Amino acid sequence: MSYFVAILMGSDSDLPLLEKTMSTLDSLGIKWEAKVTSAHRTPADTHAYVKDAEQRGCVVFICCAGLAAHLGGAVAGLTCRPVIGIPGDGGPLKGHDALLSTVMMPGGVPVATVAIGSAGATNAGYLAAQMIAIADPALYERVKQDREKNAEAVRQKDKALQEKLAQR
Amino acid sequence: MSYFVAILMGSDSDLPLLEKTMSTLDSLGIKWEAKVTSAHRTPADTHAYVKDAEQRGCVVFICCAGLAAHLGGAVAGLTCRPVIGIPGDGGPLKGHDALLSTVMMPGGVPVATVAIGSAGATNAGYLAAQMIAIADPALYERVKQDREKNAEAVRQKDKALQEKLAQR
Amino acid sequence: MSYFVAILMGSDSDLPLLEKTMSTLDSLGIKWEAKVTSAHRTPADTHAYVKDAEQRGCVVFICCAGLAAHLGGAVAGLTCRPVIGIPGDGGPLKGHDALLSTVMMPGGVPVATVAIGSAGATNAGYLAAQMIAIADPALYERVKQDREKNAEAVRQKDKALQEKLAQR
Amino acid sequence: MSYFVAILMGSDSDLPLLEKTMSTLDSLGIKWEAKVTSAHRTPADTHAYVKDAEQRGCVVFICCAGLAAHLGGAVAGLTCRPVIGIPGDGGPLKGHDALLSTVMMPGGVPVATVAIGSAGATNAGYLAAQMIAIADPALYERVKQDREKNAEAVRQKDKALQEKLAQR
Amino acid sequence: MSYFVAILMGSDSDLPLLEKTMSTLDSLGIKWEAKVTSAHRTPADTHAYVKDAEQRGCVVFICCAGLAAHLGGAVAGLTCRPVIGIPGDGGPLKGHDALLSTVMMPGGVPVATVAIGSAGATNAGYLAAQMIAIADPALYERVKQDREKNAEAVRQKDKALQEKLAQR
Amino acid sequence: MSYFVAILMGSDSDLPLLEKTMSTLDSLGIKWEAKVTSAHRTPADTHAYVKDAEQRGCVVFICCAGLAAHLGGAVAGLTCRPVIGIPGDGGPLKGHDALLSTVMMPGGVPVATVAIGSAGATNAGYLAAQMIAIADPALYERVKQDREKNAEAVRQKDKALQEKLAQR
Amino acid sequence: MSYFVAILMGSDSDLPLLEKTMSTLDSLGIKWEAKVTSAHRTPADTHAYVKDAEQRGCVVFICCAGLAAHLGGAVAGLTCRPVIGIPGDGGPLKGHDALLSTVMMPGGVPVATVAIGSAGATNAGYLAAQMIAIADPALYERVKQDREKNAEAVRQKDKALQEKLAQR
Amino acid sequence: MSYFVAILMGSDSDLPLLEKTMSTLDSLGIKWEAKVTSAHRTPADTHAYVKDAEQRGCVVFICCAGLAAHLGGAVAGLTCRPVIGIPGDGGPLKGHDALLSTVMMPGGVPVATVAIGSAGATNAGYLAAQMIAIADPALYERVKQDREKNAEAVRQKDKALQEKLAQR
Repeated sequence: MSYFVAILMGSDSDLPLLEKTMSTLDSLGIKWEAKVTSAHRTPADTHAYVKDAEQRGCVVFICCAGLAAHLGGAVAGLTCRPVIGIPGDGGPLKGHDALLSTVMMPGGVPVATVAIGSAGATNAGYLAAQMIAIADPALYERVKQDREKNAEAVRQKDKALQEKLAQR
Repeated sequence: MSYFVAILMGSDSDLPLLEKTMSTLDSLGIKWEAKVTSAHRTPADTHAYVKDAEQRGCVVFICCAGLAAHLGGAVAGLTCRPVIGIPGDGGPLKGHDALLSTVMMPGGVPVATVAIGSAGATNAGYLAAQMIAIADPALYERVKQDREKNAEAVRQKDKALQEKLAQR
Repeated sequence: MSYFVAILMGSDSDLPLLEKTMSTLDSLGIKWEAKVTSAHRTPADTHAYVKDAEQRGCVVFICCAGLAAHLGGAVAGLTCRPVIGIPGDGGPLKGHDALLSTVMMPGGVPVATVAIGSAGATNAGYLAAQMIAIADPALYERVKQDREKNAEAVRQKDKALQEKLAQR
Repeated sequence: MSYFVAILMGSDSDLPLLEKTMSTLDSLGIKWEAKVTSAHRTPADTHAYVKDAEQRGCVVFICCAGLAAHLGGAVAGLTCRPVIGIPGDGGPLKGHDALLSTVMMPGGVPVATVAIGSAGATNAGYLAAQMIAIADPALYERVKQDREKNAEAVRQKDKALQEKLAQR
Repeated sequence: MSYFVAILMGSDSDLPLLEKTMSTLDSLGIKWEAKVTSAHRTPADTHAYVKDAEQRGCVVFICCAGLAAHLGGAVAGLTCRPVIGIPGDGGPLKGHDALLSTVMMPGGVPVATVAIGSAGATNAGYLAAQMIAIADPALYERVKQDREKNAEAVRQKDKALQEKLAQR
Repeated sequence: MSYFVAILMGSDSDLPLLEKTMSTLDSLGIKWEAKVTSAHRTPADTHAYVKDAEQRGCVVFICCAGLAAHLGGAVAGLTCRPVIGIPGDGGPLKGHDALLSTVMMPGGVPVATVAIGSAGATNAGYLAAQMIAIADPALYERVKQDREKNAEAVRQKDKALQEKLAQR
Repeated sequence: MSYFVAILMGSDSDLPLLEKTMSTLDSLGIKWEAKVTSAHRTPADTHAYVKDAEQRGCVVFICCAGLAAHLGGAVAGLTCRPVIGIPGDGGPLKGHDALLSTVMMPGGVPVATVAIGSAGATNAGYLAAQMIAIADPALYERVKQDREKNAEAVRQKDKALQEKLAQR
Repeated sequence: MSYFVAILMGSDSDLPLLEKTMSTLDSLGIKWEAKVTSAHRTPADTHAYVKDAEQRGCVVFICCAGLAAHLGGAVAGLTCRPVIGIPGDGGPLKGHDALLSTVMMPGGVPVATVAIGSAGATNAGYLAAQMIAIADPALYERVKQDREKNAEAVRQKDKALQEKLAQR
């Protein structure tokens, strides 16, 4: 199956955050494309893109927006593919508004919500990979290896801590 | 001008709340129609309705939804008529989520947000009337008379209080 | 009709925020005037100004205040013209207090509340224009063109993103 | 000096809460009067009442309101007598909105805020008494005796608890 | 592939909520099993179950817990299959604590979080189905038909509203 | 009567905030003294100081503390003089914790709470003055003049704004 | 060592909650005594009791209070024995205020805070037992057995669930 | 008894915060060791470490984590020794999420929670010392002396304040 993940952002100011999503997907060998489109300013473009992307093999949509973050919900209403929502951490409320706007979806139209900001952007990539890996054993192995690599990084940090403490 | 106000609700469970909006508009002699439509479950219907309603003379849209309340924002992205958003008071967070989802709109696409729940439902009717009254002096007079009636009601309550206190 | 919009601010520290409101109104060709006045420190001045402004043709009041932001509510109690409230983002609670103080108005006296801070300041201008445009088709066209210009800006950002991604 | 305390409420639905304020003032022998008046629906009446009450010897104003509770702030802008604000506990946010709307006053116009709801209503009476007692030694004695009575009530409850535990 | 979804709950008090998840999965023809297990009281059992379930073909884990809801995060640390977290709406904070405990996961270990309480329980079933349907076109058709059925239900509610309004 | 106001702070890090209180009291000609003392670290010192200060003529206590701000409540339990609480704006929650810890006092022991941080520090001085002015007509006049001076400052800011706008 | 745990409550309305603490301590064979005393209404009694209890062998203090819950902090300032704080779930904010007032203690005077309300009341008993068990191996065994009993209860609930599901 | 305290951190970014815990324990003469380990990324390592540490004489576990801070709860499920949780102050919500994730533990598995961030890190050290001191009178003396030293520091700050004020 020739599939890909679509990364949608309400504004290009979300790009630095989404670099983490992109590099996570890259590291797992998952193809993706990205698009700036707004649920409010360009609803027709968003609609057309989602329909087209699904036709071309998009299997997971990742949406990032801040404030009254509607992009995830709007996309979720246009496709039955899984939609992952990353609440942006911008604005005066630091993403508390974006979290509630993304996660509190009514019955029938879920948005798989991850953490506000940076941690969520990384996890959106992992979550998309885990979803696709349900039917892709080779990808599942890569996800597991990556998990182990992350565990090893924790162990290295602990080793560095022990060395530091030994010198006190 | 033959105009009307459209009242949209994400679910018919919002109807009791919106009765207040309807009776406020009725009392001011403003024509309205109401529709159950969902930003997430029936996005195409919502789109079609908004476009059609505007063609038929809808000058203000009033939208009520709860939780990750996107209906106001979705409609605001489809029309340049003013959109009033009433955050519903249902769900575990009692409308705090709906308030943030409704009011924190990005620049360019405002939703005129009123209070969560009952007070907001009443005020959506008044606010729509005030908007229309900008160019309708007769309506403006009715709004002012209504305001005075509300003031008189406060005075009657005070009178009742004084009588009650006099008997202590 | 010779009308204008009045922009009221509780303190001149709100001016940078309101520059966005002013430039939005300017770009749509709407006349405005601005005033520093406080619901608490100069209540009589506020009262006099609102009454006078309405007499001179003010059709929409835009009020910006922070903390226990009462300016919108106070003005709404003095006129039946629509009042738009912009919650300021200053102070230790970053405008969460100003939002609740502005939006949770009791039945009968609405304040059309927009987002906290910068996005809200821009949207106050658009919302005022949309209200006035109910009876002004030429203005309505300008609002629609502006909306389209905003959509085009999103498309340009997407184009820039695609070029950037193509170079990776 | 022939003085009194004025108790203002935005709506007669606040009366049950304010019974606690009234009975606290009664128990301390402080004269009071009460009035239903709204910062938004009857601003002119509120203005007239505050000015008149101050003339007639009102030395402390106690204001109770819910939601975007502006009554305390509005009265504080009209008099230099101390204003005590009781945030009402009604509405979907249970008084969190009323608390912030009452307490977060800008510099120059304080509202002495007490707890949301019932505890605050009782304390508004005590606080008014403490203020007046600054220059009234006899009243100060009564406040101290009342404090001691409250302490004794705690001791009685402890005694009842010990008896209950002894029977286990 | 003979797969199933595992539904884990921290306490049997979450069962009424999870009936919605179960019936959603049933209606889409997805096999599931359910287990009461606690991240804190029976961590070893939870560990053993997750490892065993994955071996037996579990492809998605759905975890529901309240308060400091750790079950989703704990399971996510034990498997690379997607984990969906439903924040329970019990306790004094009505699920606000469970939401933050579930969604704010650090980078590398995502929990796909849905809405607090009832809407989330329904959506956990849909989201699991959407994930599995990435590689199961027949299931994808059933999900789409179900979505259409939900849309039709909205239309029926609108029809009922119109009839009701016609009789006024 | 030879009276004074006591300003208590839990830590000398609150001093910059309290400079505003001190200068407000100075400008109104009210004598004050200040003390660093902690409800938790030096409870016996706090107790001794409060009892002694009251004996020496302290008529109002102003207490500033951050985090779980208990200083106001602790002092209020030791005296029947009015206690004003200023919630400090330090710490990760920016004073939201200090506000609730200060204002939500149980019945019988009020703390007159003002705004978090800077605005509250200024207002604590005004509020103390208003309390004392109940029985001090000369002080009441100074408070009123100060209020008028503040109003004049708003008018000056408005004048500056009009000049600025005239040059556009 | 002849030790005991002291359970302090600000009001006898906290007694139902504290029954859970008492029965947990009973089940682990730990002696306790309970007292109604208030940080605000009876500060001197609280002081005397804490000093006396410590003399008589009290090794852990458990304090329960609601609203601006100062009891735990006040006791922590009077003793160097560990103090456990249970935030009560009463009042309009449902214990969110009590949580922050209890947990956000400044450096040097910790309060070991447990969950708001019922879960916290149970856990206060377990936590006290765990503290004492540091130097009491027999008690540590009882705590471990109790933990195992709780795990077994989870397993029984799971068994009941499996039987229930088997009958569907 | 040869005992020690174990300090666990989810990431080495928590180290600066935990320096305060370490220096507090050092100043009281309590042995400690520290480890970087993650409830989510290295659950098996965490499990192995907790079991081993308890065997080697660990009597108190101190856990620091941010966001959906599960480390304290996870460790509490693995041991019956007291577990102290420090909510980290990182991330967009500044530790409000970590506080709720740490403190709202279900009945049977307590985490003794201290303040978010810096004050909590210091207090975790004191609280561990107080727990151990229950059966170690010499340590108890050191804790009391330290408390007295802290009180003296407050008095010195007050002395400095008085000198500063004398020079005005």
